[in-house]
Amino acid sequence: MELEIKIRVATEKDLDRIVEMLADDTLGRHRELYEQPLPVSYIKAFKAITSDPNNELVVAYHENEILGVQQITFTPYITHQGGWRATIEGVRTLSSQRGTGIGSHLIKWAIERAKERGCHLVQLTTDKQREDALRFYQRLGFNPSHEGLKMKL
Amino acid sequence: MELEIKIRVATEKDLDRIVEMLADDTLGRHRELYEQPLPVSYIKAFKAITSDPNNELVVAYHENEILGVQQITFTPYITHQGGWRATIEGVRTLSSQRGTGIGSHLIKWAIERAKERGCHLVQLTTDKQREDALRFYQRLGFNPSHEGLKMKL
Repeated sequence: MELEIKIRVATEKDLDRIVEMLADDTLGRHRELYEQPLPVSYIKAFKAITSDPNNELVVAYHENEILGVQQITFTPYITHQGGWRATIEGVRTLSSQRGTGIGSHLIKWAIERAKERGCHLVQLTTDKQREDALRFYQRLGFNPSHEGLKMKL
Repeated sequence: MELEIKIRVATEKDLDRIVEMLADDTLGRHRELYEQPLPVSYIKAFKAITSDPNNELVVAYHENEILGVQQITFTPYITHQGGWRATIEGVRTLSSQRGTGIGSHLIKWAIERAKERGCHLVQLTTDKQREDALRFYQRLGFNPSHEGLKMKL
């Protein structure tokens, strides 16, 4: 049975479940720290995101349960005749609910939100280790036209 | 002879030369519009960038001449224990000065700036058509660990 999934902006009450989801992930388990009380760095980041009009942290939910999360950043660029872009990052769904369409629901929501905000492009990077994710994004219409390069500081 | 290259935040007076550089590029010539007066979309984007404390448009220059440009965006994320990232975008150098180290100067400056801002990661995407650019970023220490996906809206 398909759940009725809704999307809304995250509140601080959701943060615990969000971090739990981020940590319950192949790559996330090595880099996140889910413990009680929640590390203060997550709370500080949450406040920085929600106080910035160009950042939105959103959750997918059903009734009282958080099922997925993503962050959308809106950026004005000089390139493309001064066009705004939306960048999607940190897309995760509850491990017990993977393959049920929550991720696709989140991404489609982000695309509509990017249009509302007047963006000409929506973009994201995905780790080359996540082969399923690449296919997932291509099915949704994303073009892997770019290399995504990272440097740890 | 190597020029003494300096880096500073761009001012509105630089905008004309910046757009000229963006348009004088293999991919840029199809998507930019360099004409007089400058299309208002560039001026609006410039104002949006400079009024946002998480965006910096910087230029490389020698004496009174603009030689290169890049934009750096600082973003707070929930992932990586609430870590900030720096994203570099729109790196261009004057076509007559390519291969003279201006790009490398800009990127190294961005890396130092990202450290100053407390970022744990610096990232960028580069079009797969720009093969030289990929090698350039790898030489500077970037790892092409991710696919960069885009969708035009």
